[in-house]
Amino acid sequence: MTDPEKMIAAVHAYIDAFDKGNPDAVVALFAPDGKVEDPVGGPVQHGHDAIRAFYAANMETGAKLKLEGPIRVTGDHAAFPFSVTLHYQGKDQRIDVIDTFRFDEAGKVVEMRAYFGPTNMHGF
Amino acid sequence: MTDPEKMIAAVHAYIDAFDKGNPDAVVALFAPDGKVEDPVGGPVQHGHDAIRAFYAANMETGAKLKLEGPIRVTGDHAAFPFSVTLHYQGKDQRIDVIDTFRFDEAGKVVEMRAYFGPTNMHGF
Repeated sequence: MTDPEKMIAAVHAYIDAFDKGNPDAVVALFAPDGKVEDPVGGPVQHGHDAIRAFYAANMETGAKLKLEGPIRVTGDHAAFPFSVTLHYQGKDQRIDVIDTFRFDEAGKVVEMRAYFGPTNMHGF
Repeated sequence: MTDPEKMIAAVHAYIDAFDKGNPDAVVALFAPDGKVEDPVGGPVQHGHDAIRAFYAANMETGAKLKLEGPIRVTGDHAAFPFSVTLHYQGKDQRIDVIDTFRFDEAGKVVEMRAYFGPTNMHGF
């Protein structure tokens, strides 16, 4: 089982990498065959190349992430609430999101799922 | 797909039912073959009888739930951050949790998963 402190550190590294607009630093947190389902119910990005392209496109909005509460950790999973703020298409926008990460034994993310939808999007 | 407002109402009904110590009202929110994995990685309660017994035991602690941020809704899923406070075995205790609910087309919960672990338990 992955060390809880390592999972918590990975979440912080994820947020930092996103804020710095560094898709390679995000990709480095994922296992080679990792999956990203963002939002849950949407298309799944599978593998480093698809994940890198997905984050690179998202980062072009200039969005910033902010933790909005403690990172929950159980077994090989972490879950955390955060907000996304961006100034896009001339408007200040905010999205409230919860992400879940599942980790492998090497401490890499094998599955990320993002929970948010139209009721969580403000200012669009 | 389930109406987001119905999923949000179900989350509020869940918290109210827990706070009132009413396991039957919690069970009524679940599909007959619903599953509860609380915490994620632990035993799965499957079906109304197992779910009722699980909540009845949890409610004996007198725990109260409080939403700690917006309920996120996407597709047939909801996710929400909350705190659990209780006075148990002579001590004030708090647990920070994120639950995810998956709904069926009738608006009943078919899968509940609770994310929390030792790093989220305070005062124990």
